Amino acid sequence: MTAAPTVSQEGPLALICGGGSLPLAVADFVAKRGRKVLLFPLRGFANPADFSGRAPEWVGLGQFGKFYGAAQVSGCRDVVLIGSMVRPSLRQIWPDLRTVMAMPRIIAAFRGGDDHLLSGVGRLLEEYGFRLVGAHEVAPEILVPEGTLGRFAPPEREDIAVGLDYLRATGRFDVGQAVVVAKRHVLAVEAIEGTDEMLARVMQLRANGRIRAPAGAGVLVKAPKPGQDRRFDLPSIGPQTVEGAGRAGLAGIAVIAGSTIMAQPEQLVQAADRAKIFVVGVPAEPSR
Amino acid sequence: MTAAPTVSQEGPLALICGGGSLPLAVADFVAKRGRKVLLFPLRGFANPADFSGRAPEWVGLGQFGKFYGAAQVSGCRDVVLIGSMVRPSLRQIWPDLRTVMAMPRIIAAFRGGDDHLLSGVGRLLEEYGFRLVGAHEVAPEILVPEGTLGRFAPPEREDIAVGLDYLRATGRFDVGQAVVVAKRHVLAVEAIEGTDEMLARVMQLRANGRIRAPAGAGVLVKAPKPGQDRRFDLPSIGPQTVEGAGRAGLAGIAVIAGSTIMAQPEQLVQAADRAKIFVVGVPAEPSR
Repeated sequence: MTAAPTVSQEGPLALICGGGSLPLAVADFVAKRGRKVLLFPLRGFANPADFSGRAPEWVGLGQFGKFYGAAQVSGCRDVVLIGSMVRPSLRQIWPDLRTVMAMPRIIAAFRGGDDHLLSGVGRLLEEYGFRLVGAHEVAPEILVPEGTLGRFAPPEREDIAVGLDYLRATGRFDVGQAVVVAKRHVLAVEAIEGTDEMLARVMQLRANGRIRAPAGAGVLVKAPKPGQDRRFDLPSIGPQTVEGAGRAGLAGIAVIAGSTIMAQPEQLVQAADRAKIFVVGVPAEPSR
Repeated sequence: MTAAPTVSQEGPLALICGGGSLPLAVADFVAKRGRKVLLFPLRGFANPADFSGRAPEWVGLGQFGKFYGAAQVSGCRDVVLIGSMVRPSLRQIWPDLRTVMAMPRIIAAFRGGDDHLLSGVGRLLEEYGFRLVGAHEVAPEILVPEGTLGRFAPPEREDIAVGLDYLRATGRFDVGQAVVVAKRHVLAVEAIEGTDEMLARVMQLRANGRIRAPAGAGVLVKAPKPGQDRRFDLPSIGPQTVEGAGRAGLAGIAVIAGSTIMAQPEQLVQAADRAKIFVVGVPAEPSR
């Protein structure tokens, strides 16, 4: 996965945008390659202010018909789903006619975990003739490369190895993709609360004297689940991840090179240098 | 483990007491059998009010010499370590002379996880001629039996099976012993924060609409780590666990029969019936 991927370039691209700044970064990288991008920000997830002057086509989570019509008319075949999507409650779904037809499949998709939901949406798109592609396939600039980002390097690799080992052991459960490890001890495991909230918990545990490892020790380790569909669910890090790790008193962050998305790479590196923490992309199969 | 265990009865028993009501319950069960009990509440963990009128010998975590002297004089050979011991910071340790001699081993014990800490203390006690026994060996009344406690029975077993499976997969990591599972989806994993705090997190995630499963679904599953030393680190549940599970909107609690300690059994059952949640002891090797 760390070799330069082939960049998909066929026809205009439909970008369904969740929250955060990553969707727009992807849009800009794709546009820079000369490919036309249609923006479909998701109501309730994307921030309207970010899309001013970009001619977005806002869609609700259940408005598959609206998306379908606009994407078809523009000749889009490739679709990217990108951005943060905190699990919606069923109340947030406002179905239109075409969605109602597809409803049993959507409801089935909502029953399982995140992977289940997203792969359900992916299958639905494909049944309607679209091709779901990963954001990193159209904008490989967003992938964390192998090696150290920023000025600081990992002081030792053992905590990283323990974290990767834990994530491998739990990969078959549809659960979080991150752990915090310090001095070979797992301090926190992410499930549905998300990485930022897990880091806030570690900060709190440290403030309460519940963490014995000194500040400046410990690593946030993130990895994709084995076998997860990389087209829409790669782990990601951004400046706020770095800041959260800094506040939690960690030494740094380790992610899988070529399989992790970085939102705002420049700000991420700046934040890491400012917080004096390392950010490293490790090979998918670490040599032990 | 669910067969009636042999009850150790040799000489007076030294009970080193952490926090919570469990140490006194154990003391009372042991005393009811006619065995003499010496109480060593741990300063900073046990609540002084609980020990009034019981002639306790208060000890600090580092005062091994004081404990050693008192236990020796009384002819104690068996020692039980029981009660909640939130990980101490090094500042809480006030070492005496004998402890300073044993210090390198204590410091080594503190470096790893909880198991490591406790087995280090266990080894130290044994080097000084004591025999560390489990609270359940001297007071089997505190073990959760197989089957349902209280009025409510588990509505379905799948979430329990997923939880047990997850805990088996992560048993070799020195990490928490509990997960929350709803509709086969792992919602939260306990690491060092403890069960009560994990349940509070689930309550919060539900309040924020981040949990799709309806209230009244989902199970807290607790299990001992495979290979952990059952003499001092069996999982435990009490009325506050039941109340936390109720507030988190769970259907119930599943633990391993014969390998889980229940603090205040009567209050636990009352709390379960009041919160309309089930508490079940499942066999160590569930038939699937």
